[in-house]
Amino acid sequence: MSRVYNFSAGPAMLPEEVLCQARDEMLDWQGSGMCVMEMSHRGKEFVSIAEQAEADLRELMGIPDNYKVLFLQGGATGMFSAIPLNLLRGRNKADYINTGAWSKKAIAEAKKYCEVNVAASGEASDFMSIPARSGWQLSDDAAYLHYTPNETISGVEFHAVPEVGDTPLVADMSSTILSRPVDVSRFGLIYAGAQKNIGPAGITLVIVREDLIGEARPDTAMVWDFAKQAGADSMLNTPPTYALYIAGLVFQWLKRHGGLEAMGEINRRKAEKLYRAIDDSPFYSNPVDPDCRSWMNVPFVLAKPELDATFLDEAKRQGLTTLKGHRSVGGMRASIYNAMPEAGVDKLIEFMQDFERRNA
Amino acid sequence: MSRVYNFSAGPAMLPEEVLCQARDEMLDWQGSGMCVMEMSHRGKEFVSIAEQAEADLRELMGIPDNYKVLFLQGGATGMFSAIPLNLLRGRNKADYINTGAWSKKAIAEAKKYCEVNVAASGEASDFMSIPARSGWQLSDDAAYLHYTPNETISGVEFHAVPEVGDTPLVADMSSTILSRPVDVSRFGLIYAGAQKNIGPAGITLVIVREDLIGEARPDTAMVWDFAKQAGADSMLNTPPTYALYIAGLVFQWLKRHGGLEAMGEINRRKAEKLYRAIDDSPFYSNPVDPDCRSWMNVPFVLAKPELDATFLDEAKRQGLTTLKGHRSVGGMRASIYNAMPEAGVDKLIEFMQDFERRNA
Repeated sequence: MSRVYNFSAGPAMLPEEVLCQARDEMLDWQGSGMCVMEMSHRGKEFVSIAEQAEADLRELMGIPDNYKVLFLQGGATGMFSAIPLNLLRGRNKADYINTGAWSKKAIAEAKKYCEVNVAASGEASDFMSIPARSGWQLSDDAAYLHYTPNETISGVEFHAVPEVGDTPLVADMSSTILSRPVDVSRFGLIYAGAQKNIGPAGITLVIVREDLIGEARPDTAMVWDFAKQAGADSMLNTPPTYALYIAGLVFQWLKRHGGLEAMGEINRRKAEKLYRAIDDSPFYSNPVDPDCRSWMNVPFVLAKPELDATFLDEAKRQGLTTLKGHRSVGGMRASIYNAMPEAGVDKLIEFMQDFERRNA
Repeated sequence: MSRVYNFSAGPAMLPEEVLCQARDEMLDWQGSGMCVMEMSHRGKEFVSIAEQAEADLRELMGIPDNYKVLFLQGGATGMFSAIPLNLLRGRNKADYINTGAWSKKAIAEAKKYCEVNVAASGEASDFMSIPARSGWQLSDDAAYLHYTPNETISGVEFHAVPEVGDTPLVADMSSTILSRPVDVSRFGLIYAGAQKNIGPAGITLVIVREDLIGEARPDTAMVWDFAKQAGADSMLNTPPTYALYIAGLVFQWLKRHGGLEAMGEINRRKAEKLYRAIDDSPFYSNPVDPDCRSWMNVPFVLAKPELDATFLDEAKRQGLTTLKGHRSVGGMRASIYNAMPEAGVDKLIEFMQDFERRNA
């Protein structure tokens, strides 16, 4: 079989250029006689890979010097715990915005460590829209405000960074990071599981303003103590070396292809054409408020849900895979991260239109 | 450059057969049109990979049915926290045996969560031997007893499983797991970072007797709650999929090559010939009590430490790399895990003897 267009929500497609390079270097990285997986993380070869990855990421995102870049383990779900443990700094309250499934998980986990004020919730709209900033009930004494810029399941996305005054803003960017430019200086902490726009599952990015670290709760696991990991260049223990290497190859791929400005343009175009195809058809529909539709995850349902299985089956035979919607939503979901070529979106639209003609 | 014999303590060599298969499957795993890194962890392709890996590991180690097998994130160092959080089960004390650097780290971390009774320590021998079982001061009310079967830095290893009565025995097997047969039923919990004998860094194995889980401290991070992860087949959140795939390839390689009995024979032979070469020479020495010398990590020093740099340099030019000893010990260290071919040990011995002839 040839390579497919894989619309998985994550782990997700990786750029073919990256995979080819990884394949070619598998038995011998740049004349070292070793696979990157085999390298000591303390050796000069791997240290150079890690340093280059951080430097490239800093350049791509324009990360200011007063922010630390950490590559950790545990996924975003691990950080749901690590963030309160690190950022409460003696306080007992944090504000959270509830915009859907991932917000809810972050909230449930934070409640293990502090009082959570749900400052706003999209529940009234069944999470099909984002509550207007004007209605948010922020606490005076919150250690930070947490939100989820993109909800992968419902396909709801913030298209602007909310203004929250001096409260450190914490964002779970797992599914939007690197998809367009972002002003890092607006945030106290940005975190992301890698498996959507960064690289393989198993490495977790944390970008944190350095004045916010150093006051972790005393029983914070050493590997999740942001200040300690920052002091050890994320190598307090053995990091997920191969995942970081692949992430580094993705960063270089992004730089070769115009960086986040170029990605943002392509991603906007991919999303706009897919939503247009859905909106222009009576056969497909997307229920999300047009003002906060995700560029990354595009859920849609068929007018005839009894044809879902046929749709998925025929799509797969055309090399369009993993389009099944999340079990909590049903229907379809096309996740179109950076590594999904525009040609993949075009082919999906063509297939959808053909399927509609034959089945409407 | 051709492939080297890499004596790194971890991350360490992987079997060349495994790397070749990973290379060949990089762009298209078994006709799926996807790299394993790109697969949804919920899809049938990856689920089959994960199930096969667990089944193969259970077969290799003879893991009884009343033990759960978990593949987590955080490394052994993460488990230094997760283990007390899960296994204290309302108690406030745990026994630890201190045999060196890794024991000490486990102890320091456990002290964040409970009272630690250091039931025995190798300190008097500068950790060059293991304190005799007869002198251990076990607590009556310890939730578990933790020990480190192999200390990678000093090269000290238990050659038998200690008898501790009904107290659940917890072992950090990061550097010995899969190196020989082990009777899992003797243990309450076995854990291991992958990057020595299992696969790539970034995945952590936990094998735990099922009656010991389900009473994690309420503020345990969800991703480290062993009962919750067991209930979700280690997929409470996205697992490190590619690392698990490579581990699975290693398990199949072990099965093709005779399993742990065969590995144990080879590893014993590799270690014995290397220690013999050291002991037979006035130029090299290893300070560890012969009764507890590690099969996996063989530290040695030169009679003329001023030649250390020359030794390392010449060795590297012969394709024998990463032989520098840990900074806390100095000298040399040859880590000879499963994937180090016996030919690599032979070549190292030959080089050592030649170096001695020219420099003694």
